[in-house]
Amino acid sequence: MGQLLRVQNFTVSSDGFGAGEHQSLEKPFGDADPGALMSWAGATAGWPNRTEPGGTRGLDDYFTRDFANNIGAEIMGRNEFGPQRGPWENEEWRGWWGEEPPFHTPVFVMTHHKRPSFTLSDTTFHFVDGDPAHVLEQAREAARGQDVRLGGGVTTVRQFLDAGLVDTLHVVVAPVKIGAGVRLWESPDELVDRYHLEVVPSPSGVTHHLFWRR
Amino acid sequence: MGQLLRVQNFTVSSDGFGAGEHQSLEKPFGDADPGALMSWAGATAGWPNRTEPGGTRGLDDYFTRDFANNIGAEIMGRNEFGPQRGPWENEEWRGWWGEEPPFHTPVFVMTHHKRPSFTLSDTTFHFVDGDPAHVLEQAREAARGQDVRLGGGVTTVRQFLDAGLVDTLHVVVAPVKIGAGVRLWESPDELVDRYHLEVVPSPSGVTHHLFWRR
Repeated sequence: MGQLLRVQNFTVSSDGFGAGEHQSLEKPFGDADPGALMSWAGATAGWPNRTEPGGTRGLDDYFTRDFANNIGAEIMGRNEFGPQRGPWENEEWRGWWGEEPPFHTPVFVMTHHKRPSFTLSDTTFHFVDGDPAHVLEQAREAARGQDVRLGGGVTTVRQFLDAGLVDTLHVVVAPVKIGAGVRLWESPDELVDRYHLEVVPSPSGVTHHLFWRR
Repeated sequence: MGQLLRVQNFTVSSDGFGAGEHQSLEKPFGDADPGALMSWAGATAGWPNRTEPGGTRGLDDYFTRDFANNIGAEIMGRNEFGPQRGPWENEEWRGWWGEEPPFHTPVFVMTHHKRPSFTLSDTTFHFVDGDPAHVLEQAREAARGQDVRLGGGVTTVRQFLDAGLVDTLHVVVAPVKIGAGVRLWESPDELVDRYHLEVVPSPSGVTHHLFWRR
């Protein structure tokens, strides 16, 4: 089956936005309310960022606990690492993910601006330039036979989709509108020429969209 | 969170039976049609017994590929190991699971009739007597901090449910009637005093029932 490139737990609003405008250090989701987008995940027992015991073990939990299942590397866009644009001005700040990032694998951050790799706990961040196919090649090698997870944001997911590199795509549509920002899609049907699609409503109120290659 | 005891991918008919009558060496599911019960699982990419590439990667696949996720040991009833009853007459026959069993962990087979442990590939079968709590204790120790999976059949699952030992229970209801055999339940609602329940219909035609402790 080879090494898949998988998008997992990627959450957008009902109008297709992954984040609002005006992303900043204090507001990773910009003008959008992170709770309205991500509370479905935070409620589950399997959420990788969970710090307290408890949590639900229903449908949504199957998705959050699959986060690390057979994943050997992650690719993310620069917006998922931090709000900076242009050359790195402050290399002391080491991303939104804290001292114990939830990845536990090599992470490849796509950026035109080089900076040295560093390790936080058991996650090493590499900063790489190049087209999606080239970055995927590096991540596959680092994943040592396991799959590669593609994080966000929307721009990065679109880049890999447009290059035909995504094997499976799990998009969660949250019952909230954002209205402006970067849009993943007008409608999930845009992808059905290339992917099978199952649409699964969750009791929590979100709707899981599961795509895999035709 | 401790070590959970998890029932996974346990499939019953719409009238609540896990197998038909007249189980034999040739018919693990007795008079019931194994295809009608289990084809939902066999169609998925993640099915542990899959021998060919391909398979679906929709909702059902999240359940089959969770089979080994954080599992360190399995407990099964004697009926899940083989059709024999009473003292072991032929120890040459080593169960229904072939030379490459899908478990890859220690397996504890509950039986009043002792026989020596043996290993097939990376699965070791132990034959243990005792009440459910005692068997669970042994399996937990063998699982080295990971969860324990409880297999079948129906009688074994009922024993552990009645002893209050099951933490999460995933039951798949297939759209087929069996009419006679050993019954898991008259209705899933029998368990809602003790468990949260989410009912999730799958595009494949089966209905996933997800229980976790209240």
